[in-house]
Amino acid sequence: MTDLQTVLDYADAHLDDSLDRLFEFIRIPSVSTVPAHAGDCCAAAKWLSDQLGDLGFDASVRDTQGHPMVVGHGTNAPGPHVLFYGHYDVQPVDPIDLWDTGPFEPTLKPAPDGDTHITGRGASDDKGQLLTFIEACRAWKAVTGSLPIKISMLFEGEEESGSASLGPFLEKSAEELQADVVMVCDTDMWDRETPAITTMLRGLVGEEFTITTADRDLHSGMFGNAARNALQVASDALSSLRTPDGGVALAGFYDGVEDLAPEIRDQWNSLPFDQDGFLSDVGLRIPAGESCYSIMEQVWARPSCEIHGVIGGYTDPGFKTVIPAKATAKVSFRLVAGQDPARIRAAFRAHIRSHVPEDCSVTFTSHGASPALSLPLDSPYLAATRAALSEEWGTEAALAGTGGSIPIVGEFKRQLGMDTLLVGFARFDNRIHSPNEKYDLSSFKGGIRSFVRVIAALAEIDESTA
Amino acid sequence: MTDLQTVLDYADAHLDDSLDRLFEFIRIPSVSTVPAHAGDCCAAAKWLSDQLGDLGFDASVRDTQGHPMVVGHGTNAPGPHVLFYGHYDVQPVDPIDLWDTGPFEPTLKPAPDGDTHITGRGASDDKGQLLTFIEACRAWKAVTGSLPIKISMLFEGEEESGSASLGPFLEKSAEELQADVVMVCDTDMWDRETPAITTMLRGLVGEEFTITTADRDLHSGMFGNAARNALQVASDALSSLRTPDGGVALAGFYDGVEDLAPEIRDQWNSLPFDQDGFLSDVGLRIPAGESCYSIMEQVWARPSCEIHGVIGGYTDPGFKTVIPAKATAKVSFRLVAGQDPARIRAAFRAHIRSHVPEDCSVTFTSHGASPALSLPLDSPYLAATRAALSEEWGTEAALAGTGGSIPIVGEFKRQLGMDTLLVGFARFDNRIHSPNEKYDLSSFKGGIRSFVRVIAALAEIDESTA
Repeated sequence: MTDLQTVLDYADAHLDDSLDRLFEFIRIPSVSTVPAHAGDCCAAAKWLSDQLGDLGFDASVRDTQGHPMVVGHGTNAPGPHVLFYGHYDVQPVDPIDLWDTGPFEPTLKPAPDGDTHITGRGASDDKGQLLTFIEACRAWKAVTGSLPIKISMLFEGEEESGSASLGPFLEKSAEELQADVVMVCDTDMWDRETPAITTMLRGLVGEEFTITTADRDLHSGMFGNAARNALQVASDALSSLRTPDGGVALAGFYDGVEDLAPEIRDQWNSLPFDQDGFLSDVGLRIPAGESCYSIMEQVWARPSCEIHGVIGGYTDPGFKTVIPAKATAKVSFRLVAGQDPARIRAAFRAHIRSHVPEDCSVTFTSHGASPALSLPLDSPYLAATRAALSEEWGTEAALAGTGGSIPIVGEFKRQLGMDTLLVGFARFDNRIHSPNEKYDLSSFKGGIRSFVRVIAALAEIDESTA
Repeated sequence: MTDLQTVLDYADAHLDDSLDRLFEFIRIPSVSTVPAHAGDCCAAAKWLSDQLGDLGFDASVRDTQGHPMVVGHGTNAPGPHVLFYGHYDVQPVDPIDLWDTGPFEPTLKPAPDGDTHITGRGASDDKGQLLTFIEACRAWKAVTGSLPIKISMLFEGEEESGSASLGPFLEKSAEELQADVVMVCDTDMWDRETPAITTMLRGLVGEEFTITTADRDLHSGMFGNAARNALQVASDALSSLRTPDGGVALAGFYDGVEDLAPEIRDQWNSLPFDQDGFLSDVGLRIPAGESCYSIMEQVWARPSCEIHGVIGGYTDPGFKTVIPAKATAKVSFRLVAGQDPARIRAAFRAHIRSHVPEDCSVTFTSHGASPALSLPLDSPYLAATRAALSEEWGTEAALAGTGGSIPIVGEFKRQLGMDTLLVGFARFDNRIHSPNEKYDLSSFKGGIRSFVRVIAALAEIDESTA
């Protein structure tokens, strides 16, 4: 315990150095979905590999069909072997004109609540978050010369664009990456004071489709009424995806979906949650989902369908009386336990096809698929981690669900049989995927301290009983 | 009649010079809806004013709030005073990659039917068409030293972007522009052999709206289901504009709309029209409008609603699981006799508002409004023009309708009390508003010859009986 306090003190004393490294990392514009940033993704991978090297890890950048992976292994140690995962890629920055400062020019800004905001794309998702774990390891290494447990790390660069290379890479590297448990830092705290471990994750099916009507754009004066309008077909198809009561209208969509177990609903209801504030914080008031479910259930426990993008016809300033021959839409479904991604994809495509007239056509592109997942509540790693978090923050860590999807969790379970501990320090208002993304300095500092404690707690586990 | 033949011969002998001038005109990229082309619009106006000066007209460029007008007056003469109208602005050129040659690099291309295509944006709409009239005047002037009737000309530069300056300009210049009849060259021939005068025009109401839901884009993992999606609201609203049978669903939309008079329907049915070929020419087969009306009635005599553009959310390559907070759509309605544009606009806005949830908002932008119009069939100018066209083409000129809207026709009627003769030589397949716009050389040559004859025929009208 003397060691632990010394390591915590070291981490606090060197927070400015940790921040300098985070700023360096944010300055690399590693937007995975934009081909022009491929070189930046490689640079971010190299940067991470160098950090692991500094910790004495055996680390390297590994090529894939897409952006590279980073893999590093620490030295052997007693106790559980933890594989830490994060992603170095970030979301696109558009609309760029809504950023107060450059997305790749990190700054520190005093916040009204007395905290300090670290701004920039990836400040929270996931550069700031993953660095809390690396910096915790750095503190252990600096104070004690080694890490008290064996730690491996894996970083990918395609989390924000479908993780296409992840499955093949895990399959190829199954033996190398085998560990006792996976740790991921890509989730939120429950609220400013309450840490959380996310034990229930929604899955995701991403789809894009393009409707084609005529063989060219037409003039609405000459063809209006008679020629099919691709945007009308797309609007009809998209509108039909939702039922008037906020449900999803695909055939068989809710087959296998069960309501929350009463004990989980009770635990959720006991957590502090501001039902009205959740929407009013973003300028809304009326929940859009199924009215018979609470907002918490709508976003964590109910499957959803969202339209992420639509484009077709003339969209520049002014007006053009064109009948567009093409319209494209991006749509995703968030899945819960009991839903099979492949079956949902098939139902979606059949649904869209049923709205396309016989003389028109539609093509589809897949943007990833992952099932929903939940963590066994009797895991000793969960218990140790929860105790460490509760100690650091002075309040019992919540066991939460999340509406988001973290495909790696499913891949680790399916390919390597490993469960994943999702421990994150992001806040609800971090504007991830939006302009002015930020990470609270208290998240960064508390995250590093939390992982210093989690590593100590995991080292205490008696592996013979785990 | 000797004069007439000499003038026709002159026009034929100097066709290459006329083509050179058309090429010069097309090379000016006068796209009115794109602000960056404002200077080009001024250059096109100046070019036209210079052409009228060469004809001995008292011509000048007149400033407006938008792009300038060109006005020119020929010398006095007996017989009717004709005001010729055209527009020098052109449609945007996107998608640019579908053009075989540059939109502003006119070329002559042999066509499979033995004709020659003059290619380029505006080759047909309306640079090639309006120049047929100017070149006819040039031939008269060259051969006889003057024009046999008094001719004034008015050219605007905002026809493709809503004609916002036209109404105020006509109001201010009502006295100066007063004439006996207006002549416009911006319409089609009936078919390759049959000239046409368009006597029935649909009106237009153009609208743009933007739905706003949350105060920022949101992450669908965190907010999916619970937060309203602007693209879902827009899709629902757009889908609701059409009824399942191809009609328009606005409240009161068809109030005052009457079916075609049987005698007009009979005349239309007697014209050669390939009902199947109309759609198969553009890769379609199934008419999208009201199934109880023929295609010809759908595009000429029935009001319509078309979606011209939609954009919202993430539309670049790849995928982004955003819940968009904004979605924008451009929509227009083609109107027929009996429909009031202001009433249709109000019904549209009320309809869209009814689809916007209480905690969301919508804003509207108007993109012009014009009522439908029809020309009195007992006009002596119509009779003279029809006879001249029939003589030139060797077949009786058709009296046609059109689905397009030519706002100037309504403005001349409303503000100056003048009827408009719509005489054009464009072909159905000219791809106006689309990539690879073209004008047939036979349209250009035959158009010049036609107007040489029309001017002669109008000169024969006894004004005391007109």
